[in-house]
Amino acid sequence: MRLARSLAAAALAAALPLSPLGADQVPPLGFTPESAKAQRELEARFDASLDAARLREWMRRLSARPHPVGSPYGKQNAEFIAAEFRSWGYDTSIEEFEVLFPTPRVRLVEMLAPTSFKAKLAEPPVPGDATSGLVAEQLPSYNAYSIDGDVTGELVYVNYGVPKDYEELARRGIDVKGKIVIARYGGSWRGIKPKVAAEQGAVGCLIYSDPRDDGYFEGDVYPKGAWRPEQGAQRGSVADMPLYPGDPLTPGVGATRDAKRLPREDAKTLTRIPVLPISYGDAQPLLKALAGPVAPESWRGALPITYHLGPGPAKVHLKLVFDWKLATAYDVIARLEGSQWPDEWVLRGNHHDGWVFGAHDPVSGLVALMEEARAVGELARTGWRPKRTLIYAAWDAEEPGLLGSTEWAESHAQELRDHAVAYVNSDSNGRGFLGMGGSHTLERLVNEIAAEVPDPQTKVSVAERERARRLLRATPEERKELRGNPRLRLYALGSGSDYTPFLQHLGIASLNLGFGGENEGGEYHSIYDSFDHYARFGDPDFAYGVALAKVAGRVVLRLASAEVLPFDVAGFTDTVARYGREVAKLADDLREEAAEENRRLDEKTYSLAADPRERSVLPPRRAPVPFLDFSPLQNAQSRLESATRAYQEAVAKRGGKPLGPASARALNRLLRSLEPSLTRQHGLPSRPWFQHQVYAPGFYTGYGVKTLPGIREALEQRDWKAAGTQVQVAAGVLEGLAGLVEQAAALASGGE
Amino acid sequence: MRLARSLAAAALAAALPLSPLGADQVPPLGFTPESAKAQRELEARFDASLDAARLREWMRRLSARPHPVGSPYGKQNAEFIAAEFRSWGYDTSIEEFEVLFPTPRVRLVEMLAPTSFKAKLAEPPVPGDATSGLVAEQLPSYNAYSIDGDVTGELVYVNYGVPKDYEELARRGIDVKGKIVIARYGGSWRGIKPKVAAEQGAVGCLIYSDPRDDGYFEGDVYPKGAWRPEQGAQRGSVADMPLYPGDPLTPGVGATRDAKRLPREDAKTLTRIPVLPISYGDAQPLLKALAGPVAPESWRGALPITYHLGPGPAKVHLKLVFDWKLATAYDVIARLEGSQWPDEWVLRGNHHDGWVFGAHDPVSGLVALMEEARAVGELARTGWRPKRTLIYAAWDAEEPGLLGSTEWAESHAQELRDHAVAYVNSDSNGRGFLGMGGSHTLERLVNEIAAEVPDPQTKVSVAERERARRLLRATPEERKELRGNPRLRLYALGSGSDYTPFLQHLGIASLNLGFGGENEGGEYHSIYDSFDHYARFGDPDFAYGVALAKVAGRVVLRLASAEVLPFDVAGFTDTVARYGREVAKLADDLREEAAEENRRLDEKTYSLAADPRERSVLPPRRAPVPFLDFSPLQNAQSRLESATRAYQEAVAKRGGKPLGPASARALNRLLRSLEPSLTRQHGLPSRPWFQHQVYAPGFYTGYGVKTLPGIREALEQRDWKAAGTQVQVAAGVLEGLAGLVEQAAALASGGE
Repeated sequence: MRLARSLAAAALAAALPLSPLGADQVPPLGFTPESAKAQRELEARFDASLDAARLREWMRRLSARPHPVGSPYGKQNAEFIAAEFRSWGYDTSIEEFEVLFPTPRVRLVEMLAPTSFKAKLAEPPVPGDATSGLVAEQLPSYNAYSIDGDVTGELVYVNYGVPKDYEELARRGIDVKGKIVIARYGGSWRGIKPKVAAEQGAVGCLIYSDPRDDGYFEGDVYPKGAWRPEQGAQRGSVADMPLYPGDPLTPGVGATRDAKRLPREDAKTLTRIPVLPISYGDAQPLLKALAGPVAPESWRGALPITYHLGPGPAKVHLKLVFDWKLATAYDVIARLEGSQWPDEWVLRGNHHDGWVFGAHDPVSGLVALMEEARAVGELARTGWRPKRTLIYAAWDAEEPGLLGSTEWAESHAQELRDHAVAYVNSDSNGRGFLGMGGSHTLERLVNEIAAEVPDPQTKVSVAERERARRLLRATPEERKELRGNPRLRLYALGSGSDYTPFLQHLGIASLNLGFGGENEGGEYHSIYDSFDHYARFGDPDFAYGVALAKVAGRVVLRLASAEVLPFDVAGFTDTVARYGREVAKLADDLREEAAEENRRLDEKTYSLAADPRERSVLPPRRAPVPFLDFSPLQNAQSRLESATRAYQEAVAKRGGKPLGPASARALNRLLRSLEPSLTRQHGLPSRPWFQHQVYAPGFYTGYGVKTLPGIREALEQRDWKAAGTQVQVAAGVLEGLAGLVEQAAALASGGE
Repeated sequence: MRLARSLAAAALAAALPLSPLGADQVPPLGFTPESAKAQRELEARFDASLDAARLREWMRRLSARPHPVGSPYGKQNAEFIAAEFRSWGYDTSIEEFEVLFPTPRVRLVEMLAPTSFKAKLAEPPVPGDATSGLVAEQLPSYNAYSIDGDVTGELVYVNYGVPKDYEELARRGIDVKGKIVIARYGGSWRGIKPKVAAEQGAVGCLIYSDPRDDGYFEGDVYPKGAWRPEQGAQRGSVADMPLYPGDPLTPGVGATRDAKRLPREDAKTLTRIPVLPISYGDAQPLLKALAGPVAPESWRGALPITYHLGPGPAKVHLKLVFDWKLATAYDVIARLEGSQWPDEWVLRGNHHDGWVFGAHDPVSGLVALMEEARAVGELARTGWRPKRTLIYAAWDAEEPGLLGSTEWAESHAQELRDHAVAYVNSDSNGRGFLGMGGSHTLERLVNEIAAEVPDPQTKVSVAERERARRLLRATPEERKELRGNPRLRLYALGSGSDYTPFLQHLGIASLNLGFGGENEGGEYHSIYDSFDHYARFGDPDFAYGVALAKVAGRVVLRLASAEVLPFDVAGFTDTVARYGREVAKLADDLREEAAEENRRLDEKTYSLAADPRERSVLPPRRAPVPFLDFSPLQNAQSRLESATRAYQEAVAKRGGKPLGPASARALNRLLRSLEPSLTRQHGLPSRPWFQHQVYAPGFYTGYGVKTLPGIREALEQRDWKAAGTQVQVAAGVLEGLAGLVEQAAALASGGE
């Protein structure tokens, strides 16, 4: 049965007291008409002080040398950032963590048969890119947290290397036991590829960048264009982050110098097989040497070869030895004490470490954060103070697995639970459109702001421009939804940047903001992610860096000063109802698919349509999918809708009349507790670190989000019993939330 | 308003007296229980006499040397085929036509800037392919009926070169006036590409075979695999066949020696600009030299380059000079006189000319026809005679534009109108699945037969195997339709083989039959379409050649001997109702699209979402699409449904009781007149040669069919007035058909 979208919910959405977009007369969410005026003036002064030239110069400085965690320049960057923050009036410290950070000693990929070939594994300098020639300090291309290994085996091409790819291989009678797999980047977060390959019995894994995905198929390659050249390779972490991010040796606790560490062999997030990224220049001879069936059409990339699956005759030797050292991560933490509610903290962060020069990832976002913080500091110097405490952070060691943010969040977990209001993240930024992800209780706040900040190129609001982009990509159904909703929906957060420990471990309402879409290229995690590349293809005049400072700065300034915290439960209520409908539909779809699959087996459809000259293996018979009881979720949803409506009505009835200080404080406490109420201490099944019950990175997608993950992943794993249990769990969480909203409604209805 | 599928029609479809598939006990359509028995025995003897070894030897002989129209070996093949037919007891003649058939004298493609390059324009011999080295008699790669030309211009890449591709170019501010375009094969029939290019103002046209479409992207290239190698090029006609096929100089009349001919400059089916096909080996340097915007993603092929659109800087010189000679086409016509109704003719044909060796196209189909005819001749020698006259044809000059069949059909138009019952076509054949296209009045006949002939590989019926293939490719909606319908629908015929003059000019019910789908390759119209290629990749044991003989032979034998002609109007009634719904939906879709497009212009959606750094031009404002009056078509459809039901009921009521000879003859005359009633002497708007009002090749798709073409193409051309007129025309045709069916119902209800 599907969750019906109740008429009540629809009516509720229509009745929301929305401020007309861009109208200065209507107070921003959480402000009174009086305080709104001061806030608007403040934001105008904030805007006026932003200067793109500073972003450019900081980027040049911060990306001048390689600065991964543990590098000399990474430390210098942290010190430089800290000094800047201090100069802007922030109480600034550098917090250090000792984290496991392997770097390669031996990297060898060679083909032993049918011909000999040794992979270059090196990215050459290119003309016109000043830093690409600074070879000495560059970390070579590798995947962090691959285990050591020395393996030889026949090669199998596994497409993106996600579970359904192995189902396709099985249909062709191919398994990877004892083999080395070669997967292409894309289709999932990279760490999923060796994880699934190991589950399937492979002994080694290569991951290459196909020109179809970020090379010449997409556009001219660097330095002529922005895309990945022949020998470009993508570094990146392959730790099993969907299990837990951060230091593999200290799950759940801060990796302080004297923290209790797991022995390395007990660290569950290290890969089980050796894995290395290679360029397509290195991959092409290997792929070309494969025989066996031709790859399915959607698996084929843009190399000028016929893509075969193998196994073999290509036989590959992969040898990897790492230096398993601890490195020091330097988190810069800068604090501006709140004047009125200093125990309520607004957090804002961006990482500072880069795989190599990291101009785009992460410096483009970092310099926007710095300029934002500088402008806030300047406001503070002229007499204004935030009502709540602001904490700016420049994280180290994000690249190997969100280590800087995770270790800090774990170290300060109790304080954060007590004090945090919200966490606002950014990362890479570029020319284009505003990307907005996060907690749906913040959807209205972000929309109000996006409707006010102008797009640097078109001068309409960044919301209006993003709406145009969405309209052109929408299906007719989505288009209707878009046009019927004055707000742009936030995407749900999976993982891939530093919001994860705040949102998914601690239950702090979080946002991830950044521009992009017109800065496409293939420099990601390569030596070509440089100042020269960014200044040509990223955001040449740094206008989108300034735009990001305006958007994120407003979020921070409003969270810092609103009398009533600008959370809007209606945005969440509506969204979680959609997720409920999605999981119910997923169950229905799985039931229909299983029935269809079994019918095809009964009627021999597969075997009759198969080419007898090609090997094909029938898919396994599916167990029938039972009907599940979604009523607990529906009932919780219904209660949440009623509570949300009651709260909205109470607020509307007050007509802007402020609450007394005690009630206001109690209401803010309730609003702050909404997001934490969506967590459970036991976390998700098999991964207790992930406590949020609505948003999680997928166990088999990595960065890709799974909403209502307990239910959704149980269904995907075809564990119907667990899915039933998880329906109860999610319902319990939503009932808890509804209880809080009922309390908030009562408070808002009160005289004071 | 959409055409409602009336409940009556649904009830009708459900009530059809279908013979259980494969059940020998139920008489085939048109036979009495008594005559059915003899027919079954006859077909068993027919099957038993078929021998794959003969197909193989004939193919070896017929494809041993190049045999296009006008070649010495083409003439020898015709004489060989005629002699074989004579030896099997057929009254056989060779009919000659003198047709315009240009062959190249000069072919030059060179790049003048930014670098120099001269195209090879030659297909090299390959090891293991015996005939590829027989260079002397090979026609070089060219497009027949390109005009002469000597043009120089900047190059523009136009994807498939269909009208919507030029809309995409216009959105990027690119026009092709005075330019040379390079299009890839695919997406439309090749003749559309120079036609549209000329309409757009281009001065020359190159057509190349991208490896994405039939080269290494699809599979290993010849001779390792079946696919088109680097220097392989696709010959083919570019005459404007959707205007009229056949000899360009003699539209509408047979190109006999003394026929009145147009001066060449008045022949409207010749191209307006010079055009030449090239290999991807020759295309790659040209495409690589293009600058300008990157091509849209769906335009990019599999070459290892970034696909740019141009114009230029690649500057190309194209020079073509042809020898505009007349050549003699030799049609082999073999006749076996009917014993009972000799003035009713069953026609069966396949062409014999090939662009070069033509093993697959057309010899694979031709040898199946020959073996079928031989077996029929053998039956005739043992005392059996067909009740109706059989005419077997081996057409010449199909490749340059259906010349052999068209000129013969035009020469014998009146006799054919008087006598023809049906035309059964085949062409290339190969391993795989039965393709079934044609007049929907023959859908039931073909389905009965397809349910009886076993598939050589799986041993189920060829219908069952084809059904499995369709099920696996179906959308959920199509799957439901497939499973709800015991019959496999025939595809509607566009053009591309010799049925066109019979079906679309003369209104003779036609079929096109052939196996394929497991014989994929890139040999089409190249020197690599050889015996060696076919024997490896086409149909190695010629079992599907025998299967084609069984299917087409049964069709011929049943048409020849059924007491009541095996036409089933219900199959047509149901199908034309679908076409009616489709054109009504097309009008609605166009209306919604226009409204959406205009709304986007009003709301500046395109300009806001566009990248300001890339040139983009707004699409033109759309005129609103009026609501059209489809009621005449709906009323005609409704009458046709009633008449069809009445006929079905009358037939059911008779319960197999035969009509008297006079009534039977009258009924057969009526059944024969059904398909001709769907034609109009004035033909389609702007192309009078095409007289059929239900099936036509698309004016801008070429081979691709347009059903209810008058209405559909008026809508596509946004000519609402013409669409309204064409609704009336189609309604008139269907009213006429309904009248005939009403007469048939009255006849079937009569005592005698």
